Amino acid sequence: MTTYQRPSGRAADQLREVTLTRHFTKHAEGSVLVSFGDTRVLCTASVDERVPPWLRNENRGWVTAEYGMLPRSTHDRMGREAARGKQSGRTQEIQRLIGRSLRAVVDLEALGQRQITLDCDVLQADGGTRTAAITGAYVALVDAVNGLLERKQLKRDPIHGHVAAISVGICGGTPVLDLDYAEDSTAETDMNVVMNDAGGFIEVQGTAEGHAFQRDELDALLELAGSGIRELVAMQQAALAAAS
Amino acid sequence: MTTYQRPSGRAADQLREVTLTRHFTKHAEGSVLVSFGDTRVLCTASVDERVPPWLRNENRGWVTAEYGMLPRSTHDRMGREAARGKQSGRTQEIQRLIGRSLRAVVDLEALGQRQITLDCDVLQADGGTRTAAITGAYVALVDAVNGLLERKQLKRDPIHGHVAAISVGICGGTPVLDLDYAEDSTAETDMNVVMNDAGGFIEVQGTAEGHAFQRDELDALLELAGSGIRELVAMQQAALAAAS
Amino acid sequence: MTTYQRPSGRAADQLREVTLTRHFTKHAEGSVLVSFGDTRVLCTASVDERVPPWLRNENRGWVTAEYGMLPRSTHDRMGREAARGKQSGRTQEIQRLIGRSLRAVVDLEALGQRQITLDCDVLQADGGTRTAAITGAYVALVDAVNGLLERKQLKRDPIHGHVAAISVGICGGTPVLDLDYAEDSTAETDMNVVMNDAGGFIEVQGTAEGHAFQRDELDALLELAGSGIRELVAMQQAALAAAS
Amino acid sequence: MTTYQRPSGRAADQLREVTLTRHFTKHAEGSVLVSFGDTRVLCTASVDERVPPWLRNENRGWVTAEYGMLPRSTHDRMGREAARGKQSGRTQEIQRLIGRSLRAVVDLEALGQRQITLDCDVLQADGGTRTAAITGAYVALVDAVNGLLERKQLKRDPIHGHVAAISVGICGGTPVLDLDYAEDSTAETDMNVVMNDAGGFIEVQGTAEGHAFQRDELDALLELAGSGIRELVAMQQAALAAAS
Amino acid sequence: MTTYQRPSGRAADQLREVTLTRHFTKHAEGSVLVSFGDTRVLCTASVDERVPPWLRNENRGWVTAEYGMLPRSTHDRMGREAARGKQSGRTQEIQRLIGRSLRAVVDLEALGQRQITLDCDVLQADGGTRTAAITGAYVALVDAVNGLLERKQLKRDPIHGHVAAISVGICGGTPVLDLDYAEDSTAETDMNVVMNDAGGFIEVQGTAEGHAFQRDELDALLELAGSGIRELVAMQQAALAAAS
Amino acid sequence: MTTYQRPSGRAADQLREVTLTRHFTKHAEGSVLVSFGDTRVLCTASVDERVPPWLRNENRGWVTAEYGMLPRSTHDRMGREAARGKQSGRTQEIQRLIGRSLRAVVDLEALGQRQITLDCDVLQADGGTRTAAITGAYVALVDAVNGLLERKQLKRDPIHGHVAAISVGICGGTPVLDLDYAEDSTAETDMNVVMNDAGGFIEVQGTAEGHAFQRDELDALLELAGSGIRELVAMQQAALAAAS
Repeated sequence: MTTYQRPSGRAADQLREVTLTRHFTKHAEGSVLVSFGDTRVLCTASVDERVPPWLRNENRGWVTAEYGMLPRSTHDRMGREAARGKQSGRTQEIQRLIGRSLRAVVDLEALGQRQITLDCDVLQADGGTRTAAITGAYVALVDAVNGLLERKQLKRDPIHGHVAAISVGICGGTPVLDLDYAEDSTAETDMNVVMNDAGGFIEVQGTAEGHAFQRDELDALLELAGSGIRELVAMQQAALAAAS
Repeated sequence: MTTYQRPSGRAADQLREVTLTRHFTKHAEGSVLVSFGDTRVLCTASVDERVPPWLRNENRGWVTAEYGMLPRSTHDRMGREAARGKQSGRTQEIQRLIGRSLRAVVDLEALGQRQITLDCDVLQADGGTRTAAITGAYVALVDAVNGLLERKQLKRDPIHGHVAAISVGICGGTPVLDLDYAEDSTAETDMNVVMNDAGGFIEVQGTAEGHAFQRDELDALLELAGSGIRELVAMQQAALAAAS
Repeated sequence: MTTYQRPSGRAADQLREVTLTRHFTKHAEGSVLVSFGDTRVLCTASVDERVPPWLRNENRGWVTAEYGMLPRSTHDRMGREAARGKQSGRTQEIQRLIGRSLRAVVDLEALGQRQITLDCDVLQADGGTRTAAITGAYVALVDAVNGLLERKQLKRDPIHGHVAAISVGICGGTPVLDLDYAEDSTAETDMNVVMNDAGGFIEVQGTAEGHAFQRDELDALLELAGSGIRELVAMQQAALAAAS
Repeated sequence: MTTYQRPSGRAADQLREVTLTRHFTKHAEGSVLVSFGDTRVLCTASVDERVPPWLRNENRGWVTAEYGMLPRSTHDRMGREAARGKQSGRTQEIQRLIGRSLRAVVDLEALGQRQITLDCDVLQADGGTRTAAITGAYVALVDAVNGLLERKQLKRDPIHGHVAAISVGICGGTPVLDLDYAEDSTAETDMNVVMNDAGGFIEVQGTAEGHAFQRDELDALLELAGSGIRELVAMQQAALAAAS
Repeated sequence: MTTYQRPSGRAADQLREVTLTRHFTKHAEGSVLVSFGDTRVLCTASVDERVPPWLRNENRGWVTAEYGMLPRSTHDRMGREAARGKQSGRTQEIQRLIGRSLRAVVDLEALGQRQITLDCDVLQADGGTRTAAITGAYVALVDAVNGLLERKQLKRDPIHGHVAAISVGICGGTPVLDLDYAEDSTAETDMNVVMNDAGGFIEVQGTAEGHAFQRDELDALLELAGSGIRELVAMQQAALAAAS
Repeated sequence: MTTYQRPSGRAADQLREVTLTRHFTKHAEGSVLVSFGDTRVLCTASVDERVPPWLRNENRGWVTAEYGMLPRSTHDRMGREAARGKQSGRTQEIQRLIGRSLRAVVDLEALGQRQITLDCDVLQADGGTRTAAITGAYVALVDAVNGLLERKQLKRDPIHGHVAAISVGICGGTPVLDLDYAEDSTAETDMNVVMNDAGGFIEVQGTAEGHAFQRDELDALLELAGSGIRELVAMQQAALAAAS
């Protein structure tokens, strides 16, 4: 019997309010503002018919991601990466994760000789920016691909299934779903889980912040993650079903 | 008698629809989403009580600005400056302009030993991003300074007067106000004008794109700019008068 | 009944030959050449009594890691990161992982106001360089700390327990331990697991390369990893027990 | 009735002594040492028959500029930009201005598939380096183009008219022409004006340093600039008329 | 009659123990661990059939070198060049020297349209890393070229003669051969000499550390260097004669 | 009996015309335009009373050098190092050489807690820029030090003796003095020699470009260099004796 109270008052297995706003900006082939509570990330999908040099003469396309935080998306202002002249290790780690996660549901040969870039820019951060980014970028990617299908630039849909992501962690000894910043900064264990709509794992990244976690804790976290992902996939489906 | 029709259908001296949304994000001391038509810029003001090294033992503060465009804020995706490892000359030129413009209405000694940074990030670009940024950043700056006054960290208001900015140009031989991208890319002359609420000039930057402009054309442009600035100042006043 | 044959002829749960050679170079406070089969990584521990600026006046120390590959440690020559002027995202990701893993077994307050840097340089790569690096760097760290204890610069040992790491993956449908390059490049799922000597998890990083992995596959991989870690911890203990 | 005395003893509408020394160095297709008083800038024009990648298959050429200051061209030594690894925002702003100004008098299609680069390097700075640079670079550009015409690499002259530049400002309440460093650092308003030989404006960049400037002040400054430009154009003509 | 005692106890004209271990790593076409006493450098030769852009359509190949020191190869840890984002002037100077020295014994036309890169990475430094690198890289280069000859990718041997390098210096008034770190850091004059097996000079780089050196001192140093080079060439021959 | 004719018509042991123009620019504490024939280098000496961090609490000063070439100082335009964001290996090698050469004649303790920076910027290149730079920078350094002595900021002269530099080489089998670009680019051996006024060697850097050079060739080159240095020292003395 646990007595842990989440700062947000949520139940242990309760997501924050999630919104997926399509067509948030007008230029990109896909543009989704995703919010997980106070975390807000603008995800755009840009189709480039010119493939990068290393992809020429390969009979396939590529999906990649870039990630950034606006300097004052955070509680204290961070230095602007463009001004410092380099992206931090954390930024690179996250954008590599987003790219891998999305490629896991795309048939790159079916995509043809083109590249789609997902830009995930954090307007406001309150924990879970990378999981919000993956969840929102998926919707932007689908919108971009549907545009290619409608314009007959693609013959068949290269996307097989959904991908969504959520964080889980152990706070005050209790496994909880979708940590906000207040929880994230005090969690003993922090795990990001990326899954598809068939319940398969695409990425599992768990880190012991305080003390090492045991196998039964890991099991409980994976259960929580699975239920969160199912909810997120349903929200993606609802957003995509709405008239654009 | 001119026959030039603006692509937007606007009158020659008509601004696009302008909105100033305060408190757009929650962490910054000032946070304003400004839109000039489809141009949308998020302007945040961050107060830093630690002054930069070169300001130590100077009996005053500093106001500075940084500017960025999200990679897909534009029609075609631009490379991310953080990934390329440097800010373009255009970016640096614009952020220097924003900083100078705001400092023109701030008494830096009255500001005390602190720095305020205005981050102006373009979410969607359709011409006039720098003038929107100056106009919106002013409101964010006032919000940040008012917070300092309310918390008694400042004894008197260091801000003297408003500052706003607008573009003017000659299109199809006609002087017009507040160019959108369609006009900007075809203008024969392009001028950005920064003024205060007393009708004084803070910056005038005019460039002949096609052929050199004559003195009477310059005069007409300055007139147009003056009327646009008066409207913008009124909107800033209305936005700041609203309950926060 | 699986028919998968490992390229190396090893059993599915069999580590490559592991060696831990202490005092491989003479200047560093700890210096270990670790080999996992043909993968060879030189791990040095450097004690710096000057703490980095952000650690001043904090009553604790820090443990950090840097990682690099010699240009021709790999099958094809890679560009030298020092010549290209930046570390790749992969490099940064790995060195952050090594640092976190080692800090998980160090009491930073007990370490006092000093920093220990673990440099992990790959002389020859054949898969598993990050897991070899963590396993070897731990031994170098212990040697460096023991030196501080012997010279009475530390009163009590800040290291609590062992940390080691191993990769597991699914190849040809079979869960296998300690993938070499031939397996790594064809694995359907690839997971790096960092654990302590009490069987607790410090990091779990699993990636679906081909298709998403199922919960039972994840369970099998974690079992394999646990047995591999137990062997590695025993080897660390044996190496450290030997006369230096 | 003003009592302002210029530090140099000049009349308000008096230029400093201007010299334009052609063929100052021997390798460049055009090479001009320009001096505005103690400000000395070496301007070279380099013709490159290989166009940059973005210009291929465009049926035209390009004119661009680069600007630099020798580290000890200034009163106190500045850090060398090559050593710091980046050009300052000021440097980029100035070189963009020089390039735009020169392109305003060049028919890029008539120039053909080639690029001309104007390097403007400040040997000694005493205010007005950018206006001296534009004025001198024009002469270097003409020399380079005349060489192409003489060698029959160009059929017709792509240069239409002169371009020159001068600074004006308000010092001690008085509008003055061609500010030297002593005046520049104390001016209330500072304006750089680029004009052609027909009295048309190419660039107007005015900045209020102290307080905003009024429309009548702006008018007075533009008058002064116009008279200065006429003198500079005459000096360019005289220099170009001299036997080379 | 000198009374100078070398810290190592060696005679003035005595080399440190030199070893040349071929095939130290497995991927490179040539891989030699060279040691001059406690100085240990790993030299690999990588053959690249794709020539760099500037070499295309030139009827010849290229030999180049890169040099690096592991951060803790030295007594105190040095910052990692890849992390700092640039190679030091010293690093660039050394790698240029190694490249020039090796090219002096290679017929680049006979090498054909390919590039060989020698990576010289210092595992442990105790003075003389550049001379050890040249001496060891030569052996790695020969192994790489012999591989090309065996695989019939080359018709005739492009290498004409040996190249080796040694340091000489004046310590305590006495000319000595092959300085270790203890001597190097106190030498009055320090000279690196690169020679071929016919006694010809390829590079002579002498630097007065304390006071200027006289002609007779220079003569004595060159004599010492010549005898050291002869020994080193004999060791290269012995190493290459051994069964690989 | 040689039949080699120098392209310049000079005798084998004949310097180009050398000029040393003091006070070429006005801001620097020393400013010398040196020309060796068509090679022209502006050398300025800047005194900085703030020592760099690593020199604090050391009871001495420092002399350092920076080197640069204007982009069109050469026959073909070179990329600007400030724009490319890094200094080439050649640039760094040369500026390190200049700094070492000048420090060889300065008593750094007598210089006191200050730094003197010699900026050597090549306005026009025709071979021998580094030797001209050393020879001219010495005169600029003396002027700067004399200023410190005159203003009583120094009690005694920290400069002991002259330093000058010259190139020698073997062209068409003949040893020649002071190579211009036409000779430099075809020389079989190229050597830069830095000496003091007592005939002592400070730096000797010889490189075999074509084939290895023999001991007797080296001897002949050193003789030539010695005679050239004596002439250069006399010119330095004459320049410094002239009224400033």
